Amino acid sequence: MKTFAVILGGGVGARMESSIPKQFIPLNGKPIIMHTIENFNDFDPKMKIIVVLPHEHFQLWKDLCIEFNFGIEHQIIRGGKERFYSVKNSLEGIPEKSLVLIHDGVRPIISHQTIDRVRQRAIEKGNAIPYIDINESIRKVSAEKNKPVKRENYKIIQTPQAFKSEIIKAAYKNRYRKSFTDDASVFEADGGKVELVLGNLKNIKITRPIDLIIAESLMSITL
Amino acid sequence: MKTFAVILGGGVGARMESSIPKQFIPLNGKPIIMHTIENFNDFDPKMKIIVVLPHEHFQLWKDLCIEFNFGIEHQIIRGGKERFYSVKNSLEGIPEKSLVLIHDGVRPIISHQTIDRVRQRAIEKGNAIPYIDINESIRKVSAEKNKPVKRENYKIIQTPQAFKSEIIKAAYKNRYRKSFTDDASVFEADGGKVELVLGNLKNIKITRPIDLIIAESLMSITL
Repeated sequence: MKTFAVILGGGVGARMESSIPKQFIPLNGKPIIMHTIENFNDFDPKMKIIVVLPHEHFQLWKDLCIEFNFGIEHQIIRGGKERFYSVKNSLEGIPEKSLVLIHDGVRPIISHQTIDRVRQRAIEKGNAIPYIDINESIRKVSAEKNKPVKRENYKIIQTPQAFKSEIIKAAYKNRYRKSFTDDASVFEADGGKVELVLGNLKNIKITRPIDLIIAESLMSITL
Repeated sequence: MKTFAVILGGGVGARMESSIPKQFIPLNGKPIIMHTIENFNDFDPKMKIIVVLPHEHFQLWKDLCIEFNFGIEHQIIRGGKERFYSVKNSLEGIPEKSLVLIHDGVRPIISHQTIDRVRQRAIEKGNAIPYIDINESIRKVSAEKNKPVKRENYKIIQTPQAFKSEIIKAAYKNRYRKSFTDDASVFEADGGKVELVLGNLKNIKITRPIDLIIAESLMSITL
């Protein structure tokens, strides 16, 4: 099945205490998002790669591609005001009867095994969402009180979130809601039943300075 | 207020794929739990340190202290079959009108700011439990289904969990329940109201091989 990887590079970098958009911050000497793209391309060089960026970063990205002699073919799509609109824009040009893997640009250490698991399951079931377990005690909090909850009943959700294209294109025809935090929630609001598959621990999301340190150490090991 | 740090070194190491109990695994060349003890001692050399270990590891620990020329004074207490009984044993010798900080031995990178925050708040309120935010989407799962939940409403709970001694000693007089995952849950079952205070991101719990890699990288930076 023809596969598209949609790599979202939409962040503004506020939490990174950096003026560079976070997806362009160097990780082992190269912008984070280049590692992410290379990872998908290494997994399957036939995969079509779509990179979604805010329009104001188009020129910076082109300059970076030249500077780093970055040769992996990809399409650039203009991001929207919210993640929802960025994904919606990227889906427009994707044909039916294909598979779409939607991935955070700031998750460069995604394992090939995870990509393979989500792809296989989405071919079978129409969608697949990677998760990992929570390793510590958690509590539910509100303004008034807090209480312990069973950690086994909660999972951390990662990307890539994989869907058959006609299913996710249909879901993104619905109205935007503030409660949409990822593609799974958009799909679910359209009546879909989310299929969870195991992700991988190294597939961290780089949003804070500490994550960059962790990512550099994780990239140096095979585990 | 006289302060006791109870450092729990009770794990059996199953998840670390290692035959050494996880608290004794070397981190930057020295057993994890030694870093933890040093950290509390550096924060306040007057703090009384109690280390809880399974009886079968007493000799190993003594040998390690000699090998690493480990000179920080501490009391060794015999651990129980469950974390609950280990803490209960450690509380027996602690006098009333003091403060108890109960900490996982495998969290060596606790910041002095976090120790200070929990200590101050527990002096004011009787208890203090450190938390950090969750940075990714989370879902609640059951055998039948899964649904998204608001990540802002959930917090990851860390240690040290701090209590006035008479309060936590009273709570540990209650019967053991399987639902007790930490001291906050024991305290709460006794009618206590949990006070959350901010923990710190570097205060990770080392339970898997990947955590050890992350810990080594985090120890090398000040952030």
